Amino acid sequence: ALAAPAIAQANPKISWRLTSSFPKSLDTIYGGAEDISKHVAAATDGNFTIQPFAAAEIVPAMQAADAVSNATVEMCHTCSYYFVGKDPTFAIGTAIPFGLNARLNNAWFYQGNGNKLMNEFYATQKIYGLPAGNTGAQMGGWFRKEINTVDDFKGVKMRIAGIAGRVLEKLGAVPQQIAGGDIYPALEKGTIDAAEWVGPYDDYKLGFYKVAKYYYYPAFWEGGPVIHAFVNLDKWNSLPPAYQAALTDACAFANTNMMAKYDTKNPTAIKQIVSQGTTLRPFSQDILEACYNASLEVYKEISAKNEWFKKIYEDQVAFKKEAYLWMQLSEYTYDTFMMIQQRNGKL
Amino acid sequence: ALAAPAIAQANPKISWRLTSSFPKSLDTIYGGAEDISKHVAAATDGNFTIQPFAAAEIVPAMQAADAVSNATVEMCHTCSYYFVGKDPTFAIGTAIPFGLNARLNNAWFYQGNGNKLMNEFYATQKIYGLPAGNTGAQMGGWFRKEINTVDDFKGVKMRIAGIAGRVLEKLGAVPQQIAGGDIYPALEKGTIDAAEWVGPYDDYKLGFYKVAKYYYYPAFWEGGPVIHAFVNLDKWNSLPPAYQAALTDACAFANTNMMAKYDTKNPTAIKQIVSQGTTLRPFSQDILEACYNASLEVYKEISAKNEWFKKIYEDQVAFKKEAYLWMQLSEYTYDTFMMIQQRNGKL
Repeated sequence: ALAAPAIAQANPKISWRLTSSFPKSLDTIYGGAEDISKHVAAATDGNFTIQPFAAAEIVPAMQAADAVSNATVEMCHTCSYYFVGKDPTFAIGTAIPFGLNARLNNAWFYQGNGNKLMNEFYATQKIYGLPAGNTGAQMGGWFRKEINTVDDFKGVKMRIAGIAGRVLEKLGAVPQQIAGGDIYPALEKGTIDAAEWVGPYDDYKLGFYKVAKYYYYPAFWEGGPVIHAFVNLDKWNSLPPAYQAALTDACAFANTNMMAKYDTKNPTAIKQIVSQGTTLRPFSQDILEACYNASLEVYKEISAKNEWFKKIYEDQVAFKKEAYLWMQLSEYTYDTFMMIQQRNGKL
Repeated sequence: ALAAPAIAQANPKISWRLTSSFPKSLDTIYGGAEDISKHVAAATDGNFTIQPFAAAEIVPAMQAADAVSNATVEMCHTCSYYFVGKDPTFAIGTAIPFGLNARLNNAWFYQGNGNKLMNEFYATQKIYGLPAGNTGAQMGGWFRKEINTVDDFKGVKMRIAGIAGRVLEKLGAVPQQIAGGDIYPALEKGTIDAAEWVGPYDDYKLGFYKVAKYYYYPAFWEGGPVIHAFVNLDKWNSLPPAYQAALTDACAFANTNMMAKYDTKNPTAIKQIVSQGTTLRPFSQDILEACYNASLEVYKEISAKNEWFKKIYEDQVAFKKEAYLWMQLSEYTYDTFMMIQQRNGKL
């Protein structure tokens, strides 16, 4: 047999497996893994292949980070905040209550200290993280009864996880951890009173409008959640620089493309949901204020015990203060005017 | 000499020149070309190099598209709307008055018909276009006198170009086309009464705060302008598929990274500007309404004469109506609450 010439070393054949924390039925969010896979293959002439697997095909959704840490798979596509049980610092990678919106998450990760600080933390878990998707501000979820005052949260059994669950607990709600596929029957039977998932496009598929009448907004706990690509740190470091570059840019493409998909598909879905008799309701200002104050208490509690969380949280808050000062000038005034035209049927 | 093995053909050495329409001093927007160059080189192991040149180094800023069409350079980094003089359809590629914001431009280009339709049009100019940057909603510009009512625009000589100039003309303003470097002396001497440029970070560098007191917002003509990479169509088609993929993803990175830079740098700049005594003023609702109505007239006039413009404009309007319906639920409610906290000093 003829030995391959030395030049071939520049493009070694590398095959990786990626476990997604999402089912294939959620084409928007699962689609991020497909984007990464396709774009990396295309940019490397098929030499670096990343095969995506849906949640539970090879690794359970909620074990994706562990599988990457211990190199069971080379990478995953997941929400960092699924792993708050290991360390609450994971939450900041995706979204924390009253955190950054989608655009400002990009700003903090790409140009602020976001990628730097989160990767210092992820390195302690043998992980390298890349932003690779966003859903935009999510909906606040499905409720079987109206939530008009802060007191109405008392005793409400709600499917909501992580830090947001701790916040609602302070208001008297009873947070529950339930996997996506189990929410519908739980809501139907009344085992739970409320559930949050993503937004119109994904929620419509799961049929929640059939078993809960009120659809509240916004999800104050997910103002612009980042979906991450997690790569085993040793595997990342062993990649040829060109493949690191191809993967970095493929994730940047996936990041923007997922947001674009949600923004393109959600408008139709919200109309379908309303046409089924769902009532849309904003959380009152009082409720949002109470949740905001409860969130600050939770952050104080966590920060007192966790140096990583404290350090990264404080950096993000400093960024957020500045960013929301600027955003309320041109950006907000422009959008407000456009929305007035939309409501008046003049767009 | 030893002949190169056939395998080397997979990574041919290709060197391109890119002309930017921006000076190096505007590091945010010129930086987009540098991002593209660096990321393409990294992903191709240095085999595909794109050398960026600042405006006027090899091609004048406003001739970038022509230089690409006739293959003087392989590509440029520019604003499509600089070329409205050739055809008004170019304007839609960047921003038209009361068009899409930055996030919705991404949605329309990536997942709506934006990239498809604009590239059908660009192909008539021998150009292939890729979104490769955004500034976000720009500021409405610098005015030497207050603009309180629609009538106050009468006779105002303002540096503003393209379709926005036609809109303000309907209100009685006198639009002027002046290159970036000539704006300051024109404002200082009073040759013009007002000028729009970009936003705080770029405007501060040019020192406009020294010669005009009022800084209005928003730029209703630039709700989220897209910066484009234009590639000569034959050159694009002749690229190996892996290089096309690398360039596509590098532009996606540059697109998000530029927006992130503006969002990170503008907050500091707006405070610097205000500290110099500048007065920030929103355009009144009446003024925005009058400009909106004037814009619709302009679109009707252009559409009556230009099939390309009509077709693409109508597609974007249909997308905009749907998108702004959805954006005003969770996204807007979330941002509004966060801005209230910011104003109350509670962020």
